[in-house]
Amino acid sequence: MANNKKMVEAITGRDEDFAKWYTDIVKKAELIDYSSVKGCMVFRPYGYAIWENIQADMDKRFKKTGVENVYMPMFIPESLLQREKDHVEGFAPECAWVTVGGQEKLAERLCVRPTSETLFCEHYKKVVETYRDLPKLYNQWCSVVRWEKTTRPFLRNSEFLWQEGHTIHETAEQAKEETLQMLKVYEDFYRDTLAIPAVVGRKTEKEKFAGAEITYTIEPMMHNGVALQGGTSHYFGDGFAKSFDIKFQGRDNKLHYPHQTSWGVSTRMIGAIIMVHGDDDGLVLPPKISPIQVVILPIAMHKEGVLEKANELKASLEDKFRVKLDDSDHAPGWKFAEYEMKGVPVRVEIGPKDIEKGQCVVVRRDTREKIFTPIENLSETIEKTLQEIHDAMYERALKNMQEKTHVALTHDEFLQLGKEQGGFIKAMWCGDSECEDILKDETGGVKSRCIPFEEEHLSDVCVCCGKPAKHMVYWGKQY
Amino acid sequence: MANNKKMVEAITGRDEDFAKWYTDIVKKAELIDYSSVKGCMVFRPYGYAIWENIQADMDKRFKKTGVENVYMPMFIPESLLQREKDHVEGFAPECAWVTVGGQEKLAERLCVRPTSETLFCEHYKKVVETYRDLPKLYNQWCSVVRWEKTTRPFLRNSEFLWQEGHTIHETAEQAKEETLQMLKVYEDFYRDTLAIPAVVGRKTEKEKFAGAEITYTIEPMMHNGVALQGGTSHYFGDGFAKSFDIKFQGRDNKLHYPHQTSWGVSTRMIGAIIMVHGDDDGLVLPPKISPIQVVILPIAMHKEGVLEKANELKASLEDKFRVKLDDSDHAPGWKFAEYEMKGVPVRVEIGPKDIEKGQCVVVRRDTREKIFTPIENLSETIEKTLQEIHDAMYERALKNMQEKTHVALTHDEFLQLGKEQGGFIKAMWCGDSECEDILKDETGGVKSRCIPFEEEHLSDVCVCCGKPAKHMVYWGKQY
Repeated sequence: MANNKKMVEAITGRDEDFAKWYTDIVKKAELIDYSSVKGCMVFRPYGYAIWENIQADMDKRFKKTGVENVYMPMFIPESLLQREKDHVEGFAPECAWVTVGGQEKLAERLCVRPTSETLFCEHYKKVVETYRDLPKLYNQWCSVVRWEKTTRPFLRNSEFLWQEGHTIHETAEQAKEETLQMLKVYEDFYRDTLAIPAVVGRKTEKEKFAGAEITYTIEPMMHNGVALQGGTSHYFGDGFAKSFDIKFQGRDNKLHYPHQTSWGVSTRMIGAIIMVHGDDDGLVLPPKISPIQVVILPIAMHKEGVLEKANELKASLEDKFRVKLDDSDHAPGWKFAEYEMKGVPVRVEIGPKDIEKGQCVVVRRDTREKIFTPIENLSETIEKTLQEIHDAMYERALKNMQEKTHVALTHDEFLQLGKEQGGFIKAMWCGDSECEDILKDETGGVKSRCIPFEEEHLSDVCVCCGKPAKHMVYWGKQY
Repeated sequence: MANNKKMVEAITGRDEDFAKWYTDIVKKAELIDYSSVKGCMVFRPYGYAIWENIQADMDKRFKKTGVENVYMPMFIPESLLQREKDHVEGFAPECAWVTVGGQEKLAERLCVRPTSETLFCEHYKKVVETYRDLPKLYNQWCSVVRWEKTTRPFLRNSEFLWQEGHTIHETAEQAKEETLQMLKVYEDFYRDTLAIPAVVGRKTEKEKFAGAEITYTIEPMMHNGVALQGGTSHYFGDGFAKSFDIKFQGRDNKLHYPHQTSWGVSTRMIGAIIMVHGDDDGLVLPPKISPIQVVILPIAMHKEGVLEKANELKASLEDKFRVKLDDSDHAPGWKFAEYEMKGVPVRVEIGPKDIEKGQCVVVRRDTREKIFTPIENLSETIEKTLQEIHDAMYERALKNMQEKTHVALTHDEFLQLGKEQGGFIKAMWCGDSECEDILKDETGGVKSRCIPFEEEHLSDVCVCCGKPAKHMVYWGKQY
């Protein structure tokens, strides 16, 4: 059997070969399968269930702020994409183009959406007439396509799943507020749902989104010290409105350009979950999005009463938790390894001796700690344990991020840290993108991650050129 | 303001011009906007919220039968699509083709999925090894593209949203059972959630899905007597397995071909909701999927205590129902018309006099019946009223379907009914598809809808050719 074979080979050690360890988990936890189109993945049931749980949680957070879901077409006519100059320059090189529809060559080729700003603008132009129609706070969950040369499961797919919020406002202030509010939603979600700490802040001019005035970003650090751009929130000013000629009648009865934002996170988040929390035995899933929160494993299943008791436990827990009882005839050792690989936060073992004593054993995935608990307290124990797991996962990730964050005061320090240490580097910067280019070249890929909201004053001069410093910046390599 | 203008013009009468009435509702209830790509629609918040409610309800029904959700790539390489002969013949003529990715012409062109049988087969070939891996019961929610010449909102879009279930089984019996089970899920959903009655049964050879051995269908009737193919469930036998070389090791240790099914419903269902239930004032939404179930309208809003009371009512209802309080400064008459257009099942009016008497007024969208109810009973009254609305909507639709279903015993009767009456025709049939062609030509479009599970014996001979009859068939024109 496929499954049995699988569990015999162990996966690559995390500290031995991080990239191979990652790919092993993606495959052996049955998250993804490759398809015959390069860079396009099959999200298998376990991988997709993680995404469904992420969606459900995040969608509630969006709707609480007044956001409504919509669905835009997946095709963008080339002329529509070209309406905003910076935007098209950023995206046209990696578009997939439909040129034939039915049996006929199309008069104008259609891009499969890489992002949908242009479609939202086209729609807003039609439905926004006066200030009373503002704001519109729209979001869509969909897939987008970016024709990537090198692809990696979850991290860089030619097609991936995401949400893209697009809002339009009466004033610049309201749009800026929305941009920051959604960044905050992402930050809360990463911390409270995914147990992932991150640095947040503003992107430099060089790194911001094509067409944006300001791009905010959330940057979690993977276990190996590499950053992942975990989500972005863009303020567009009235640039798109001008390109698409969207105007509204203001409170002063005059015509004005509205102000826009967009913000998005994608299935890369699943990559972050793997690389922040996973260990040598596989996935370690944050309890709040784990497809299975509790797996019940009956021990000595053939003995009288064991399976009945296991079913009883399941029935008593499943109103409150996502529970699976595995009563298959695999050996307990196989099952232990299987659910560890799949990152299930809590395993409950119940055997004849436990039943005699009126107890069962709760085992934590993250620490392997065994907790003996009276059966009548099981539900409370699990609830408490899931919260403790969440908190401990966050703390471990935070500690890792802190340990791998270093200060560089001089150019030499920066180069040494960038080449040898990995992780985040905090360093002062003059504001010139040329210095970003130089530092990137010299270190083989260290880029500015963000200018945090609260900057420390590390020194007076740019770590690269020695001119007066304008900002403290987080730097690091990225996926 | 756009909204004010809108409510002044009435919509076209339903019995005056059904097609125009339909388009008016789609637009004025703000369900859909057109995009610049022909046949691709924008699902606006109100239209998309209906789809979200449909998804949530249906997804629960699927999962209860053991179905798991997945996500397959949106692109199908041309060679993969061509693996099953009948299938490619059915779909290739209406595919959209990606021929350029990034800056380069692709070596092989990619079809934007019109349906995903081929992708599921490619995946199943990799993950199915023995009978222990069966069944796989997968479903995906996604959009698909079919390059249609003539398009109509919801009914025939170039891109539409749907779910497609794809399952693979050890035996033919299990696959057939699954096919029927999912048809039953659709039938239950139409009846219990959408309040829509329908005829169900098997498609004739001529009308079945490209590549299927058996196609089952659910066929509701619109108010004007025209049928809509509301959902289909296909049994493939081992045809796809053979084309894709999918084999599994059976209980007898020999290799066998598995048996497959697929089944789907789409956003056309929203078209059915409009055309089955709507009236001259707009949408009439089934309570279970209505984005707003209860709208609270304060009367004489400026009077002391009215708004407070309205907010109190809202707070007391929103745990149980989807509630909106409209405290905008539009006139009550405008609001009445607006929420009637949007098909909100129940409107609650509360004014100073009502407050004095400790009562409020509950108004049904479907019948306009006014129910005066003590405020302390409001929640119970609404719950009861929503159920009564659902039941009454179903009964009205059933009555319409019954009144517009006729028996044809002779060729002449068939032609007369087909040309003059519309609706369903019940008539005997010899089993020959040539007779289907003849009847379609003679009547300007009447086709076989299905062979119902319980056939009546109307006569001994085919209504077309007079040869011995094999089946009783439902016939009718379709969208």
